[in-house]
Amino acid sequence: MSHNHDLEESLVLTPKFDAAGLVTCVATDAASGDVLMVAHMNAEALQKTIASGEAWYYSRSRGALWRKGESSGQTQRVVELRLDCDQDAVWIRVEQTGAACHTGRRSCFYRAVATGQGDSTTLTFVDADRLFDPAKVYGA
Amino acid sequence: MSHNHDLEESLVLTPKFDAAGLVTCVATDAASGDVLMVAHMNAEALQKTIASGEAWYYSRSRGALWRKGESSGQTQRVVELRLDCDQDAVWIRVEQTGAACHTGRRSCFYRAVATGQGDSTTLTFVDADRLFDPAKVYGA
Repeated sequence: MSHNHDLEESLVLTPKFDAAGLVTCVATDAASGDVLMVAHMNAEALQKTIASGEAWYYSRSRGALWRKGESSGQTQRVVELRLDCDQDAVWIRVEQTGAACHTGRRSCFYRAVATGQGDSTTLTFVDADRLFDPAKVYGA
Repeated sequence: MSHNHDLEESLVLTPKFDAAGLVTCVATDAASGDVLMVAHMNAEALQKTIASGEAWYYSRSRGALWRKGESSGQTQRVVELRLDCDQDAVWIRVEQTGAACHTGRRSCFYRAVATGQGDSTTLTFVDADRLFDPAKVYGA
């Protein structure tokens, strides 16, 4: 393994952006601990998140900076932001207004696969109730 | 936004691997909800994780499949595995033996940045006690 001791023990924010200029961000519900979504931040999204305490992301599909909830109203207030050992991933614990997923579910992770029982390729819905109607929130 | 309704509502496992053949995997502590690590799985790592109920990853730096804990003994038993809306991210809730991070910490996310107070580039250690000595576990 190639590890960088200085980076691991440093108390200076030194994000390690990938070739596309992004770090991975995991948002969890500050109350339940559930993972709400996995998305990406560029340098500006990370800076704005830190400065404002509201979650900003970078949309790879739209190629644009994006304040979470700017279209849907489903904002995320950041309770805590952490960096991982090699500073290429960010974890934010958030207070989620409504639902994090564009499908209207609280979390993007609303399907599970059975584990430890051999190969399985069947998903089952878990916590998959919709808190909003995407057609109404995002328009036609 | 470009979304795929069929993929979002499908109950068939159809992972969307990136150009390198990987999906992002977030491992959280099944008891505390803390994010332990963010890593990657290729198709074989995902299949082995599902079949065995033990976490397998793909190391980008080593270019190799990797059973979590095979060197360190710090294994992860998977309690639940979920896929996100577009099936390019995996969330596993795990029972972590010892520490997830190669630095000896329980979680890779042992440093925080203050948020909502303007720009900050200073990290502070959080839950950063070492549960093992990396030099002893991984050898010289």
